[in-house]
Amino acid sequence: MNAEFDFDFDFEKMGGLLPAVVQDFSDGEVLMVGFMNRQALERTLEKGYATFFSRTRQQLWMKGESSGNRLKVVSAHTDCDHDTLLLRVEVEGAGLVCHRGTRSCFTEAIPPRDPETTAPDPQEAR
Amino acid sequence: MNAEFDFDFDFEKMGGLLPAVVQDFSDGEVLMVGFMNRQALERTLEKGYATFFSRTRQQLWMKGESSGNRLKVVSAHTDCDHDTLLLRVEVEGAGLVCHRGTRSCFTEAIPPRDPETTAPDPQEAR
Repeated sequence: MNAEFDFDFDFEKMGGLLPAVVQDFSDGEVLMVGFMNRQALERTLEKGYATFFSRTRQQLWMKGESSGNRLKVVSAHTDCDHDTLLLRVEVEGAGLVCHRGTRSCFTEAIPPRDPETTAPDPQEAR
Repeated sequence: MNAEFDFDFDFEKMGGLLPAVVQDFSDGEVLMVGFMNRQALERTLEKGYATFFSRTRQQLWMKGESSGNRLKVVSAHTDCDHDTLLLRVEVEGAGLVCHRGTRSCFTEAIPPRDPETTAPDPQEAR
């Protein structure tokens, strides 16, 4: 677990954690955001499946380990500041990432304040 | 700036901030992750353009206000825990979101540890 990273990730900016955006590789849908400490990132890269650090439980968890909806990593990128991750994944199992039984966790639309500045969201009809 | 939110956002989990994933509305590309405090979120919803809270400068900044690469909000969603945001945007100006002059900030591929668990990334050829 002491493997060297090719990047000098900035874990300090958020108390040892990096936000990790999880995007469906096949259609680009953003499924969830999790957080990774160094150990979670190392395990993710080693196993090829996304492992996060639970802020509430203060422990590592491999997403979908019990439900079967594991996130198989297709590609991993970091950003210009090296303080955020983007994982493109293939969702295994039933393909339902959210614990509420939906594909994505981002199911709740925030109403705009001024209708003129926003366009209808085509995903609302789902 | 004291408008009521329809959601009880969980700003406390990250010291007053929510991570905001910015996704291109037209093709689904994830462009950047910024952070919003309550004021930044309110301003974003009011103006229809993404405003973030800079953790390094400790102040609000409307993305692209000087460069012209503003992020026009097409839709805003929150997740099941109400602690993360997803903004689908139309990038104005030259369409280059990253200060390095690229469209997305996520330009640096993290090499996999085991080639058998990952597939080639089609975006690498850009």
